[in-house]
Amino acid sequence: MRSVSDRSRALKGSPIRRLVPFATAAKKRGIHVYHLNIGQPDIPTPESFMRGVREADIDVLSYAPAPGIHATLEALIAFYADMGVALSDDEIRITIGGSEAFAFALQITCNPGDDVLVPEPFYPNYNGHAVMNGINIVPITTKVEEGFHLPPIEEIREQVSPKTKAILFSNPGNPTGVGYTRDELKGLVDLAIEHDLFVISDEPYRELMYEGHATSILEFPELGERAILVDSISKRLSACGARIGCIVSRNPEVIAAVDKLCQIRLSAPTFSQLGLVSFLNDPDYATAIEDIRTQFHSRRDTLFEALQTIPGAVCRKPEGAFYIFVKFPQIDDSEEFVKYMLNEFDLDGETVMVAPGAGFYATPGVGHDEVRIAYVLEESKLLRAVEILKAGIEAYAASREGAVTTAG
Amino acid sequence: MRSVSDRSRALKGSPIRRLVPFATAAKKRGIHVYHLNIGQPDIPTPESFMRGVREADIDVLSYAPAPGIHATLEALIAFYADMGVALSDDEIRITIGGSEAFAFALQITCNPGDDVLVPEPFYPNYNGHAVMNGINIVPITTKVEEGFHLPPIEEIREQVSPKTKAILFSNPGNPTGVGYTRDELKGLVDLAIEHDLFVISDEPYRELMYEGHATSILEFPELGERAILVDSISKRLSACGARIGCIVSRNPEVIAAVDKLCQIRLSAPTFSQLGLVSFLNDPDYATAIEDIRTQFHSRRDTLFEALQTIPGAVCRKPEGAFYIFVKFPQIDDSEEFVKYMLNEFDLDGETVMVAPGAGFYATPGVGHDEVRIAYVLEESKLLRAVEILKAGIEAYAASREGAVTTAG
Repeated sequence: MRSVSDRSRALKGSPIRRLVPFATAAKKRGIHVYHLNIGQPDIPTPESFMRGVREADIDVLSYAPAPGIHATLEALIAFYADMGVALSDDEIRITIGGSEAFAFALQITCNPGDDVLVPEPFYPNYNGHAVMNGINIVPITTKVEEGFHLPPIEEIREQVSPKTKAILFSNPGNPTGVGYTRDELKGLVDLAIEHDLFVISDEPYRELMYEGHATSILEFPELGERAILVDSISKRLSACGARIGCIVSRNPEVIAAVDKLCQIRLSAPTFSQLGLVSFLNDPDYATAIEDIRTQFHSRRDTLFEALQTIPGAVCRKPEGAFYIFVKFPQIDDSEEFVKYMLNEFDLDGETVMVAPGAGFYATPGVGHDEVRIAYVLEESKLLRAVEILKAGIEAYAASREGAVTTAG
Repeated sequence: MRSVSDRSRALKGSPIRRLVPFATAAKKRGIHVYHLNIGQPDIPTPESFMRGVREADIDVLSYAPAPGIHATLEALIAFYADMGVALSDDEIRITIGGSEAFAFALQITCNPGDDVLVPEPFYPNYNGHAVMNGINIVPITTKVEEGFHLPPIEEIREQVSPKTKAILFSNPGNPTGVGYTRDELKGLVDLAIEHDLFVISDEPYRELMYEGHATSILEFPELGERAILVDSISKRLSACGARIGCIVSRNPEVIAAVDKLCQIRLSAPTFSQLGLVSFLNDPDYATAIEDIRTQFHSRRDTLFEALQTIPGAVCRKPEGAFYIFVKFPQIDDSEEFVKYMLNEFDLDGETVMVAPGAGFYATPGVGHDEVRIAYVLEESKLLRAVEILKAGIEAYAASREGAVTTAG
């Protein structure tokens, strides 16, 4: 019997997904699980978005235009104008979530066998798309002690080879919450110009920045046709299920390629595009986004402060997004730790699920003492989750010591 | 400046898209254009679907589960059961339209460099996905005089090579409307078993069959783990903008790969999945589909009969879908003909846009005297369109004769 293709087999399932059955089993045993393992917030989607969907005046639910519904594109252009970036309608296309925009960016910039430089830890789905397209991710390791900010540009330059086609990052970052400074980004921009590389900037969390200004890649005009923005409404509107994003480029060759890719997948979902028009045409849309930002800001502060009570925890206060990436020296293998929390531990019938760190690194052996915590629940729950985490880490460390002793 | 990737440049825009600006220009001149060039019907989407979207009880529009919303999967399994096919929940996954299901099928069955056998003329987007994945389409030419039914199986067998991984077709077919007989399909099934090939059957038009039974690939249990069904609600629900399809396979390795591909694109649009649940849970859903089928049946008969009035027109009555693929011996280059109809011709201020035939063939030089006509408008409009087409063909032929004379 014929097997599936090599790249299908090479595709790794995410470690978080592998752990989900353990959470399901814990719930079956009556344990309450605080899910801080995924980037799915609990914040209600703005009413103006929902109204746009409900009140859509549609008789025939026909294909939307492949590049996006005209009114949606216009609304997005106005949105970027509000943030100080002027775009023409030749520079933006609507995609099926940021995921599709990212896949397009990778397919358009790289041939199979090409390299992309990516600061690690990084969003694991970058890996999946790279594998499916035969593209190599070359990791630039960043460190918890430095708040996951970039290493000196010389270290990054050393990784550039003739096969390098692009630099890719998310900013503010998933999974670390790092918000790059303008100077850091300028270093990457200059490097890209020097070596003639594309820069793919994934910015779904751009509005979720709590310290300083979230600098978009579009704010570097010197990058010209090399900049590709990957964007999504999922996080800033708490509308992950809408599946609406966009890709922005001032490179006509890139947009021409995007147009052809849009044609072969026909269109992005109509209802969600109309929801977005309704949201962005609401005069108060910026307030709605600001409300979401304020909630996450407060959650970040609460979670960060609570984490300081866990002995040995290493983390810097992240500037944006809704993640904190923490090192716990007591944890030798964070995937085992997550399993332990789900299988063997509870505090008064409750436990916590976080994401193990190693899955966010391409470099083998790194991140096993780290976890990503997503602050996607309200503050009282975050506080309780940290309390459980603290007790769980202590119990896990004790159980490992016992195991080591027994083994010896 | 770095260029885009080789495959981005290799990707051809569709000829229909290239011609759209001429239609836009014609409309600006005040000409009414009957669009029979695209697979977008004018039939209203069933109210039960729309109600499911409007009345969705959603507070946080969160990611749907990657493989599909449970209720939607259950409803689809019941839908297949109604057509006599028993599926378990390990055998079906929801996709972002049939397009994504098709892309998954291609990526899972083939490595770059592999071959897929495809009867031509075929849906041009197959080409786009093949180019982006480095896969070769090996065409099996079918003929208008034979109603685009398959050639003898020996001719197809000759095209099988060690690089062949799959046989792919749409049934009932876009762009020809051919509905393969059970015997024809059995020939392909046996060939696939003999040479250990996957069979990818693209069946969005399965309910739109007007002569005989539309045989699904799932009706051949002997194919076992080799069958992959690509499906979509777009056509049978007149809901192209929903972007909901599915992929069905009894091969655990294929489904495992689909699951990983679903994870890296996160989820299919939530509202549309809820619309589909509402539609399929309506006890009268089969009647709603039958209503759509009946309208297309009547349109097919009307269009087919009207086409007989055009001198020289060659076509057999197609069994399904909503296309007729016609040869007009008077037309030397159907792309030029479509331009002529849009740029130079009108009948009392009206003209017709059809799709040129060559774009549906992989074999060079074939199809230049053919066009695809989509019967996506109501019957009175179809009759008027044929009247215009008839006059247009006559005028075009006369203008070409004149051109040749002048040139000579």
